Order: sequence, then C-alpha cells, then structure tokens
Amino acid sequence: MKEYKLTPQPLTKEAFAPFGDVVEVPDNKEDPSLIMINGGNTERYDSLVNVELEAAGGKPDTHAVINIFRAQPRPVSKELAMDIEMVERHPFGSQSFHPMSGEEYLVLVADCVEEPTPENLHLFIARADQGINYHKNTWHHPVLGLNKVCDFLVVDRKGGGNNCEEFFFGKDVKIQITC
Amino acid sequence: MKEYKLTPQPLTKEAFAPFGDVVEVPDNKEDPSLIMINGGNTERYDSLVNVELEAAGGKPDTHAVINIFRAQPRPVSKELAMDIEMVERHPFGSQSFHPMSGEEYLVLVADCVEEPTPENLHLFIARADQGINYHKNTWHHPVLGLNKVCDFLVVDRKGGGNNCEEFFFGKDVKIQITC
Repeated sequence: MKEYKLTPQPLTKEAFAPFGDVVEVPDNKEDPSLIMINGGNTERYDSLVNVELEAAGGKPDTHAVINIFRAQPRPVSKELAMDIEMVERHPFGSQSFHPMSGEEYLVLVADCVEEPTPENLHLFIARADQGINYHKNTWHHPVLGLNKVCDFLVVDRKGGGNNCEEFFFGKDVKIQITC
Repeated sequence: MKEYKLTPQPLTKEAFAPFGDVVEVPDNKEDPSLIMINGGNTERYDSLVNVELEAAGGKPDTHAVINIFRAQPRPVSKELAMDIEMVERHPFGSQSFHPMSGEEYLVLVADCVEEPTPENLHLFIARADQGINYHKNTWHHPVLGLNKVCDFLVVDRKGGGNNCEEFFFGKDVKIQITC
C-alpha cells in the first residue's frame, strides 16, 4: 500500500486561486474591491465571491440559499493524523464556507481532473477570519473543523440535477493529513 | 417638531418575519431545517435564507455576490441617542448580514409602505451569533455596528437597474434610537 502524508500550507488568495476564492478583508487599503458607502461609515469589499448557479436541465427553481453547518471537530492535530478516504464536488454551483466560531480550520482540495490521485491533493489551513469559496466543480473534502464544534455560514446552490459527486481513493492508498 | 424615541426589542424569527429571516442555529433539535450530512459529522440547517434575485429588465448578468462590510461603530448606547434620518430598500433582491466580529448590533426596519413614517419603524438588537436577511424591498437603515469596528459578511445582488431607493424623513420630525 502506498502512503501519503499531507501537512497544510497557509491559505492565501494566490495559492487558492485554482480552486476558488478566499473571503477576507484585504491587507491593502488600495485593494480594487474597496468602495466607501453609507456616507463614509462603511468600507465595502465588493464581490469577493461571484456565486455560481447553473440550472441543470434548465430547471427554473435553481437559486442560492444560506445554510449553517454545525461541524464536529475532526481528530487531527500536529501529532494526530486523520485518514482521508474521499473528496466531493458540486458540478452546478459554487459553495462557500465562512467560520462563525472563531476557530481555524482545514481546507483540502484536489486539482480539476476526472479521477484525482493523492498527488492531486492540496491542504490549506484557514484562519478564523478567512472564508473560502469553492468554484463550481472543484474537488474538496467535507468541512474539516478543529478543536471544538464549529459553525460555518454556507452559501450554496439549491435546485435540480445531481449536484454532489463523490470520489473514493480506494483501499490501495493510505492518505493522512495533520495540521 | 414631533419627536420619536425607539428602544430595541430582542431579535427573534417571529418578530422579524414581516421583514426577513433570522439566520441562527435553531434551539430545537427537531427543527425541520436540520439535515445530518457528511457521515454524521455535520448538522446542516438548510435554506435558512432563500436568496432573492430579480433581473431588472431581464438583464442576464444578475447574480448573487458575497461582500464584506467593515462598519464604523455608531454613536449609540443606553445613554447616547443617535438621530435617524433615512431608510433604504433594494427592490430587486434580498440582502443578508452576518456578524464576523463577535459583537451585537442594531437592526432598524420599516413596514412595507411607499412612504414610511416614524410610526412604521421597528428596532431590534441582534446577538453576535444572529445574522439577518432583509427580504426584497424591505425598508432598513444602513448597518448599525456598535462598540467597535465590526465586519459583516453580506450576501447581496449584483446586476442592472436601480436597486437602492432611499427615503428621508425630513426636518419636521426628530427620530432617535438608543440600545
């Protein structure tokens, strides 16, 4: 059996760009997303995510929804490795996660290929003030909360069609992540 | 000049229903929004908001976006009253606010009439773990952060048409809020 061990890199817009968006207040006050509104009372960082919504089969009921995900903490730390068995993707819409519990979390994605291998995986660690948006059809692991039960605000697609595909790596590889 | 003073009521789904949605984890584990996912690792509280998006004039570029609003704290407390001069509404889409800075905030809305009067106003205080979604065309005051600079995640509409109408109460009334 071939074994793989992944440790996370910090989540940055640049490193995450092939997979989606990082939703955070930019460091730079000259960031082009910044628009002043409300008579100067509010800085608006505009369109950090463009929500993708595809109407599978032209179904007219396709729309965006806001959910809350309450995630159990996963058994993973610097010392403790967690086995990874699968990834999933949503072919008809983007999906974004925004931490509400003040905790960092892990983000595991794979390159955009039909059948990802362990070499296609990329592991990031997100700060408590960073949200992420998976572009449509991006392979990713289900939410990986750490340390305690964590709530995430999730902007997702609702509509017809099979919008969740799963891929299992199989028994001939062992993939482990730490953080 | 006629004077009005508003103090907030706690934000609840029931009280806020005429104006929009409260985005929070329900107290009740038998809430119909709850779906278990990710092999039992995650509670999904589903479709707490249905994002409303109207394509004004049938413009095909209408879509949902995610912004961050960084709001200056407003000069309002139990002792300190803030003058209210106007409300605004978005005729072509809903707009939701989700606190990211661990602070409570004020939510000021008005009944769905063409020209609101001070008697139409309703003031709520939201907990740090409560988001709110204004239904399409709901009169509301721009974001009212308290205590410190506060970030809010905002799910909004992007597209053609004039999606922001403002209404000013005029100089013959004085409206003040406290909290």
